[in-house]
Formats: sequence, C-alpha cells, structure tokens
Amino acid sequence: MGRWEPNARGRLEQAAMELYGERGYEQTTVTEIAKRAGLSERTFFRHYADKREVLFGGSAALQDLLVAGLGDAPASAPAIDVVAAALDAVAASFDGRREFALRRQGIISANAELRERELIKLASLSAALAGALRARGVAEPAASLAAEAGIAVFKVAFERWTDGDGTRSMDHFTHEALEALRAVTAGA
Amino acid sequence: MGRWEPNARGRLEQAAMELYGERGYEQTTVTEIAKRAGLSERTFFRHYADKREVLFGGSAALQDLLVAGLGDAPASAPAIDVVAAALDAVAASFDGRREFALRRQGIISANAELRERELIKLASLSAALAGALRARGVAEPAASLAAEAGIAVFKVAFERWTDGDGTRSMDHFTHEALEALRAVTAGA
Repeated sequence: MGRWEPNARGRLEQAAMELYGERGYEQTTVTEIAKRAGLSERTFFRHYADKREVLFGGSAALQDLLVAGLGDAPASAPAIDVVAAALDAVAASFDGRREFALRRQGIISANAELRERELIKLASLSAALAGALRARGVAEPAASLAAEAGIAVFKVAFERWTDGDGTRSMDHFTHEALEALRAVTAGA
Repeated sequence: MGRWEPNARGRLEQAAMELYGERGYEQTTVTEIAKRAGLSERTFFRHYADKREVLFGGSAALQDLLVAGLGDAPASAPAIDVVAAALDAVAASFDGRREFALRRQGIISANAELRERELIKLASLSAALAGALRARGVAEPAASLAAEAGIAVFKVAFERWTDGDGTRSMDHFTHEALEALRAVTAGA
C-alpha cells in the first residue's frame, strides 16, 4: 500500500462522476479520473477494478443492507413484510443521496453496457433476497416471487424518486409502490 | 435474395443448437452452423444478424404474443387479469417446446454475455407490457408494477417448468406462480 490518502475513494468517485458528466463515460480514462482527484492511477486501482466499478462500487453494500434489513422483521412475519423491512433499510440509506443517484442514473441511461450492468445488479439483488428468504424458511416459489416483487417495488420506486421533484424521500416512493403492487395483485 | 431454401431458418436453428451443445457457444462459428445445416453463410445472415441471435430470434415474437394477449382480456378487466391473459397466450405457445427451451437454457446459463442478453430481453418485455397497459388506460405506478409482476411470474414459472419433470405444462406453472404472488403480496 502507498501512503495514506484522505478519503481517496470518495475523491475518485467525485472526480469520475464529474468527468462522466462533462465528457461522457466512454471518453473518460482512469488516468484522467486519478489526475482530477489529485491521486495516482495506482491509488485508483486499489479502490476500483476499472472505471465502470466507480458506478457500481455501492452494489455489494446495497446487497448487504438488503439482506441485513430482512433481520429487522420478526421470524413469524409474512414474506412480504420481511421484504418491506429490507426495502426500508435500503430507502433510509438513500437519504441525502438523490443528487448522486440522479447523476449516476443519467450516465447509466446513456450507455448500453452500463444499462446491462445495472440489470445484472438487480438480478443479483433478487437472487440474494430469495436466498435469504429461503434461509428464513420461506418455501419456493414464494421466496423467489417475494424477492422479485421486492426488486420490482425497488425499481419502480427508484425511478419515481429520481423522476420526482425531490420533495419526497425514497421511503415515500417505496411504500407507494408496495401499496400499488398489493392493490394490483388483489385485482384493484 | 438467393434461391429458396426449404425451412432454412429452422434448419439453421437446429444446427446451431446442436453445435452449441456439442462444442460450446463460444467455440462455434457461423461457418460451421451454415455447413451443418447444408446452407451458405449468406443464407445464415439473411435470417440472423449473428450467432447470438439464433438464441434470441424468438424474442420479438414473444413480445408480440404478450402484447397481443392483453387484448384477450375485456377492457374493464383489472390490470393483473390483463397481464394473466397475456401470460396465458405466451404459455400456450410453449407447448411442445420444452426440449428446445431446456437446451437453450443450458447454453445461456453457461455464458455471461448470453445471461446478460436474456436479462435485457426480460427488461424489454416488461417495458413493452407496461406501455401496452398504459395504452389501455392503466395509470402509473400500477402499469409498471403489473408489468414487473407479470415478468416475475413468467421468470419463476419458466424456471420451474424447465426444472420440472416435463409432466406439467408452462400454463400450469404460470398459474401456480401467479397464485403464489397473490398470496405473498396479500401477506400469506
């Protein structure tokens, strides 16, 4: 390891987001990101495997948060309430992150490879959620369907949160989407 | 166009599936597929853009079937019943196709690029379904959630149909998954 750089990861993320916004994701190099952050390329590669991972570096934390959030529900809770507890934990972590989420979304929408990576991330979250539900004793196909329903709620809520005017939280849109899904499947 | 080749598309699909199974998707070339089918490379490219599209050539037809299937539900039907009608139309089209589906699934599972392409296909189906529901007057977020729910049901049912012993139809697993989703979201 080289010398300690205060908040190197955050500075690299900030520099990368600026450059992706200014000149586009494809046109930005790791050399430029490191330079903008005032750090070396070696430091970049200590924190991220490549320039794409700057945008997806939070995926593992998101999955951990989701799976840990399941634990907030009592053992006897119905699967959908367990999923709702996990989504609440994730929504809370998004507070104050809307500007970042908006910029990230803009960069991802403009690039097919990044859109694919985002789909893979959501599929991985769904698989992790289904596995955690099975570990709690939820049978199939209920575990997979509760997990898929949870990811659908997350996806729709996230779109509405980033498309909105910023006055309402991710938590608001998560609850709205979950209620809408309940109403839809009940035949409303 | 060259001379007419009887069932060229079907012969190319058959040859490609055989070769992907025998030597792996990556190791198979278009030249070999055409040769196995007893056709020219030119004929191959009249039917498929590349070797990947042999596995995804049915996606457009699947989407058309799904969207057309919505029309089987009365105008006043709840969104979930409209989605169920679309899934019924798709399930019926899978009758007699389980062996093909199993082989296709085996090839796709073994290759990261193909798994990504499959996720894109499902996301496109969901977007098409949501658009068709909005065109029928279903508001957001209900339209997106009903579409996502439909694709979740399709995905889980498809996995259970291909994992099963072949005695029950895709239609059976579609109904099973839809009922399980209803029970899950109702808090069962």
